[in-house]
Formats: sequence, structure tokens, C-alpha cells
Amino acid sequence: MADDKKLTPRDQDFSAWYNEVVLRAQLADYSPVRGCMVIRPPGYGIWERMQQALDGMFKEAGHVNAYFPLFIPESFMHKEAEHVEGFAPELAVVTHGGGEKLAEPLVVRPTSETIIYSMYAKWVQSYRDLPILINQWANVVRWEMRTRLFLRTLEFLWQEGHTAHATHDEAEAEARTILGIYRRFMEEHMAMPPLTGLKTDSERFAGALRTYTLEALMQDNKALQAGTSHNLGQNFARAFELTFQDEQGQTQHAWNTSWGVTTRLIGALVMVHGDDNGMRVPPRLAPNEVVIVPIWKSDEERSRLLEAAYRVRDDLKSWNGRGDDRIRVHVDAREGVKPGAKYYEWELRGVPLRLELGPRDLANGSCVAVRRDTRAKEPVALTTVAAGIARTLATMQADMLKAALERREAHSVREPLTFDKFRQIMDGEGAFVYAGWNGDPEVEAKVKEETKATIRVIPDPEFRSPEAPKTCLYSGQPAKHEVVWARAY
Amino acid sequence: MADDKKLTPRDQDFSAWYNEVVLRAQLADYSPVRGCMVIRPPGYGIWERMQQALDGMFKEAGHVNAYFPLFIPESFMHKEAEHVEGFAPELAVVTHGGGEKLAEPLVVRPTSETIIYSMYAKWVQSYRDLPILINQWANVVRWEMRTRLFLRTLEFLWQEGHTAHATHDEAEAEARTILGIYRRFMEEHMAMPPLTGLKTDSERFAGALRTYTLEALMQDNKALQAGTSHNLGQNFARAFELTFQDEQGQTQHAWNTSWGVTTRLIGALVMVHGDDNGMRVPPRLAPNEVVIVPIWKSDEERSRLLEAAYRVRDDLKSWNGRGDDRIRVHVDAREGVKPGAKYYEWELRGVPLRLELGPRDLANGSCVAVRRDTRAKEPVALTTVAAGIARTLATMQADMLKAALERREAHSVREPLTFDKFRQIMDGEGAFVYAGWNGDPEVEAKVKEETKATIRVIPDPEFRSPEAPKTCLYSGQPAKHEVVWARAY
Repeated sequence: MADDKKLTPRDQDFSAWYNEVVLRAQLADYSPVRGCMVIRPPGYGIWERMQQALDGMFKEAGHVNAYFPLFIPESFMHKEAEHVEGFAPELAVVTHGGGEKLAEPLVVRPTSETIIYSMYAKWVQSYRDLPILINQWANVVRWEMRTRLFLRTLEFLWQEGHTAHATHDEAEAEARTILGIYRRFMEEHMAMPPLTGLKTDSERFAGALRTYTLEALMQDNKALQAGTSHNLGQNFARAFELTFQDEQGQTQHAWNTSWGVTTRLIGALVMVHGDDNGMRVPPRLAPNEVVIVPIWKSDEERSRLLEAAYRVRDDLKSWNGRGDDRIRVHVDAREGVKPGAKYYEWELRGVPLRLELGPRDLANGSCVAVRRDTRAKEPVALTTVAAGIARTLATMQADMLKAALERREAHSVREPLTFDKFRQIMDGEGAFVYAGWNGDPEVEAKVKEETKATIRVIPDPEFRSPEAPKTCLYSGQPAKHEVVWARAY
Repeated sequence: MADDKKLTPRDQDFSAWYNEVVLRAQLADYSPVRGCMVIRPPGYGIWERMQQALDGMFKEAGHVNAYFPLFIPESFMHKEAEHVEGFAPELAVVTHGGGEKLAEPLVVRPTSETIIYSMYAKWVQSYRDLPILINQWANVVRWEMRTRLFLRTLEFLWQEGHTAHATHDEAEAEARTILGIYRRFMEEHMAMPPLTGLKTDSERFAGALRTYTLEALMQDNKALQAGTSHNLGQNFARAFELTFQDEQGQTQHAWNTSWGVTTRLIGALVMVHGDDNGMRVPPRLAPNEVVIVPIWKSDEERSRLLEAAYRVRDDLKSWNGRGDDRIRVHVDAREGVKPGAKYYEWELRGVPLRLELGPRDLANGSCVAVRRDTRAKEPVALTTVAAGIARTLATMQADMLKAALERREAHSVREPLTFDKFRQIMDGEGAFVYAGWNGDPEVEAKVKEETKATIRVIPDPEFRSPEAPKTCLYSGQPAKHEVVWARAY
């Protein structure tokens, strides 16, 4: 952490800036295995906060956790035609175990539909056994050639929900419920406002009926697919004979959904909120919301200031004004590191609030709180320090969402464009471009070829423009949908 | 769950009983991949409770979590001579990725010393960077030929701590601290009292200086190794060039520890506490501590009783007499399932406390609490239901530990034995046999060959007999250590 040279500014080289932040804030590091990363404690701490929030929301909505095997018989991947086509190029294959060649190679799970629905087929007999609402937290492997820390790695961590229902409509409602949970999580915890809606057929999950997506705008005006929720229809139920007897005693195939978000969200957090000084972590996802930096000159001052710092820490930790959600706080008591160096380091890591506590502050019965997002300073009275800090943290959480929303809207283009102008935008600053599309996959392919932009989403009603576009951006034909175009990670 | 035929009694066939409990309580199921299991929601719920308790204790002691890659270059396994010898026969190997043969095969981690210390070598320069106190929650793969649900599977879940220190003594203290945390966890949460102490050289972890172990006695009087904590010395630091500059500017190799417990603990819970009616889960590890079964005959009664049941649930959930640790409670509101069938099912799953709530109870302003461990019934007043229930749960937690401790001591043999008598015990009922050992690995090997018993542990002082045994059980030579023998899982 002693490396205190400046980060490459975002507007100079966004990609270099991103890598520097990830490495120097110790979120992750490269590993000896190509394309695999190590998630270091400061990064993993954010993932733990994400897990805790999401897990609570899933459970609140009736889901339970389980764990399914890492290895999948290769033949399982072939049972659903689209699925194998989508995943075959990305598989890691175990051919040897215990010193022997295996009779059937095992695939390291790239996703678990096949193994999970084969188990559900064993567990479900009657409509009384439905719905099944299971989630798992796990690692998965996809053999990517071009990798980036958090955004695209051979192995990543995620949660994958897999549900089974008696009817199409129930499955559809589940897929939409999860989309809502993801959106709420991203807005309320990540302070990142995504667009939600449907993927086009060409971007649909391999084996799904419909894929819902959440698309967020990064500071370089590229989109990041932040989560997906799939209505799988009966495709996997047919492939794995997942059937049940309905109330009339008829045998039917179940209806499935699957949905997931990954450690890529940590990368999103960097790219949505970071600034030229490093990370800015929204309070609700910060492993430490507050760092207290006591400032001393002499040994006598040191013990006095440290004592005061620990008292403030204890006040914050024991305060129950947020119920069971106690304020997470750390005292930086290191000797031999100057306050300025400590400030620099905690800014780089994005700790939301820094409390500076020097002899004069102590004499005044106050300390100075410095917000990471705005760098605004305000004095906080030590007698009511917890309530004051909690208020500032709540304000900050709301302000960060507001700022991200304003950035997104400032870089959204809704007015009708010529294709030339569209290309200029994509080649230049980038944006979420709302435009008409005639529904033709050929058009999608051509626009992608010419501009590297893709249809990120057919947006849900609340994101659509007041007036629907009448013509297709590329073909000039009548528009079938309003869609949002962008270059993407 | 509709399967309500009786379990095989423990004293008839302990092994059959174990498998039936695991399958019918839906803790786990066999998977399509040989030797890999599916951990079903009721089993995973217990694992989540275990994780939460352990994770809190690790963090309290200064540890943080991180995540290292699943794949390890095969060459890494060869860098520590003992380590590769111990693990080579158990490796699963990825030879193909993305459709291509790999230049160097990748091993699926059987444990992560090699990859983790190679990263620490990159992160550590000076004594100021030490200690590193990292834990990870992960899946690992060991190619076992004879597998049993939870006890021995190809893939299992665990936590593995990996620390680096500046001195031998610090590493030794860390290994012992963790042993203490494990012991406290097993006693206070699992209600399972383990013996602690040192492993003999032949049972030492491949690559360690010293292995500390926790050994618990199952109800069939076999031992189960419940956790280990290793002082790795400088073996891995040497293999991976993990060095640091000390305060005098000299380059030194770091000292490491590693330690882990696995999902096998769920199997231990079954075998320590289960009875002929199924699981008995200690309250602190129960996903639901309480299940409320409302009893009704008519529709009118039904809505009245359900309403009362939800009121009791809310009273229990909102009670803060245990601080942030709220009572976990479920209402079994299923229609079409008789109360008796519900009782049977929750007993099988081992829910600690059942609350029966019928019209007459409601009229009396009380309900009936039935303890799973003793099956004792007691009325609880609805006005103070939460305090009453919490008291009973606390008593039950303590009683279960006491009962397990008494069972262990009742099946511990401390009086001097002839080897013939020892063999009779091992061939018969089984036990923890305390006896003298001359320190010779040959003796260990011969006793194992003749009786299938192994030295489980050289016990810590607090577990040793008041009078140290003078002679070796097998050789008759002077004893070097008192050791504990048993057959083991």
C-alpha cells in the first residue's frame, strides 16, 4: 500500500485507471493460472456485503440455499440443444481422477441447470412438491480467452437460483420477482440504477424462453450486464424429464427459471462510482463504513487520542438506532504511518467516511467527518456521534444513487438519430441510445459489425420514452420495439 | 417426506441408520456423479449456521476472508515433497479448456497451500506485512474411492485458513488459537465435546511440522476427526520463496499455519446426537429452532388457530432478549397434512422445539412445547412465550452437550489393558482407549493392522489421565506418551 503515486486519470485511459484501482485498492490480483484471479480481502469484504443483502432478499421471498456438485457428466450438457451450443466452447474438462482416465469426462460447471434439474426430476412427483425455490452460492468456470479482473475471468463466484413451478405464469412471475429484487439491490445497496427489460433472441440465455436483464451504465458510457433472470419454459424439464402429476392426475412437465449475479458486480461498483483518487464504496456495501484516524504528535497525545478513538468506535458499534445493522467502523492505530498517508490509502479503498480526531478536536468535543464521495468535511459532536454519522451515511448512500442516475440520464440519448450520428456517438463518447428496431436479428448483427454496439435491452415500460420511436434506426422500416443500444463489457 | 416407515434402529445397523437419516431428513442426496453429493436445503441450512458461528469467531480473532483460484498448476503440487506424496493419488485433473488441450494440466484444488503461499510470496516484503491472517470458504476435490454422504465425498465444502508469521512461536500460537476456537465451536454450538491434542507423525498433514486435531466420539463408539490445525513451519515458505526482511534487514522465510473444518461436521452432528426417530439438532445450529404446529378441526378453527400461530411466531421473532440473535421459528400451516404426520416429519429433521397449539391451548392462553432431545412436554404461557421458549432452548443446548460428554466418558477406557482385551474392545463395542505408547511408528502400524484402531490423538494435558500410563499397550516397553486409540471414520 506504500505505493502513493497518482492513478492514471479516468479521462486519459479508463481501462488503465480501472486496473490500477482494482490492484492498488487490493480488491483483486492476478493469479499464476491464466485468467483466474485472487479476490483479496478488501474485495471479498464487499462481496460478503453483497451476499448478505441479496441472500436476505432471496430468503424474504421464500427461497432456500443448497449446494450441487461442481462436476457435471459431459453427456448432461448435450441434453438441451441450445444449451450445449452456447456453452460447449467455454468448458473446462476433467479427464483424469485419482490417477486414472475417466470413463466419461466431467465438465466443471459453467452453470448448473443440467445437474440441478436432473435432481429436481428425482425429487418432484406431484404438484404438492412444487414450487421448488432454491439458490446456491458457488464458483463456476467458463473458458474465456480475453479476461479482465472481475469483469471476465475463467473462474468467478456467483449465486444461481433455480426454481420449478407448476405453470408458465408462475415461472414468469418468479423471473420478474427476481428481476425486481436485483433492481432493488442495485439501486438501494450498490447505488447503481440499472435499466431492466428483455433481451433480444440473439442475446438470450442458451436454453431459455425469455431472458430479463439489468443493464448499468459505466463512467466510460459503456453498458455492463449486471444480472439476468431467465424464464426457461419447459426446455430443461423436457430434457431431464422433470415431470409432476397435476391436481387432475395428469403428468406435466414443470416450468423453470434460473437467475444469477456474479463477482463482476464488484467491477461495476468500481466503474460506476470510482474517481481519480480510487474507489468510492456506497456505505451499505462497505466492509467498514467509517475509519477513524487519530492524530498525535507525542506519546502522551497518542495514548489519549487512541483511547478517545476507541471510545468513539465503541459508541458507533453499540448504537442501535439502525436496529441490528450496527455501524461498521475501524480505528487506524498504525504507528509509523503519517495521517496523510492513511487518508490517501483509505480514499483509494473507498471507505465512505473518515473521522479525523486530533487534540484540538478532542478539546472541542468533536471530530471532523470527511465524506469520500464529495470530500465535504463537517464537524460532528462526540456526544451524539453515532446518530450524526448514521445520518451522514444515509445521506451519502442516497446522494450516490442520485449522482449515478444523473450521470446515466446525462448520457442517454432519446432523440431520433441518423445512423451516421449514432455511429459517431458510439465511436466517440458512448451512451445509452434509445431507438426504434424492426425486430430483425440481421439488423442487430449489422449494427454490431459496423459500430460494436449491441441491443442491451428492450426496456420495461417505466424506462421507455414518452413517445415510442416510429422507425428502425438502421433499416428505416417501421419500429417493432424501442430498444437501448450501447457498447458493452 | 411422506415416507413414514420407521428408521432402522441404531443398535441394529448404525451405518444403515445413518444413511437413512441423511436421506430422509433431506440433509443430502446422491448425485449423478459418483462420490459427489447434493447438500439439500435442510442440510445446507445447518452448514449456514455453522459458517456464521465460525466466521464470527475467526473475525473476532483478527482474520479476514478472501478467495483463491480453484485451479492449481500441476507443477505447484510438486514443490513441497511430502505434500505431493500425500495428495497426488487423490487429484482430479483438468486437461482440456475451451476445446484445446492445455500446455500444463491444472489440478482441482484438494487444499490450497500451494496457490495461496505463492500469492503471499508476492504480497510480503517486510515484517510490517506480517502477519497475514486469511480464511476462505470454498469447495475442494479429493478423489476418494469409498465415499459416504458428508463423511467422505469427492467434493466437499470447507473453510481453510492460511496464515503467515514472522516467527515460529507466533505460528505455533496461531495454530493453538484456532484449535481453541474449533473446540469452543464444537462444544458451544455443536454440543459435541472433542478431545484435542497432537497427531502422531504418521497422521500428520502432508507438509506440516505439527498437526493438532479434534477427535469426537460417535454413538457407535468410533472416532471422527472433526477438524485440524497445522503448524506448517517453514516448509511451504521455502517451497514458494515466501520471504520477508526482518527488523534487522535480514531476509527470512515466513512461518505458516493452515486449518480447516468441513461439511463432514454435518455427518458428525447426525452421529453424535441422532436417535431412532431421526436427527436432533442443537438449537444454536438449527435453521429453525421452533416449529409451531397449529391444530384445527373446522375451517373456522383453522383461521383462528393460524392467526394465533402467526401471532406467537411474531412474538418470538421480535423478542430481543437474546440481543441480535432472534429466535428462528417456522409455522407449519400446510393443509391436508395431519398434525401427527407433521410431528413425525419435524422429529425426523430434528427441529429442537415443537409448539403444539390447539383450540383448548388457545382458550387456556398457553401452548405445549415438546423438546426434541428428551421428548418432554411442558405448557408455556402465551403472554411470556418468547422468554419461556428461549429459556428452554438454552437448557436444551446445555443438556445436549452434557449428554454427549457423558456418553463419551462412559465409552472411554482409562484402566490398563492387555492387548487381547484391547482387541476385544475394538472388535466389540468400541471406545476411546487411553493407553501408553512407546513412540514407535511400527507399533502404530501393527496395532492398526491387527485391530483397525489408530492413534487418534496425543491428548492435550486437560484430557490426560491423572496417572500417566507406564508401559506401551502393544510392545510392553516404557511409554513415551499417553495416546487415545479408536477405530475411526
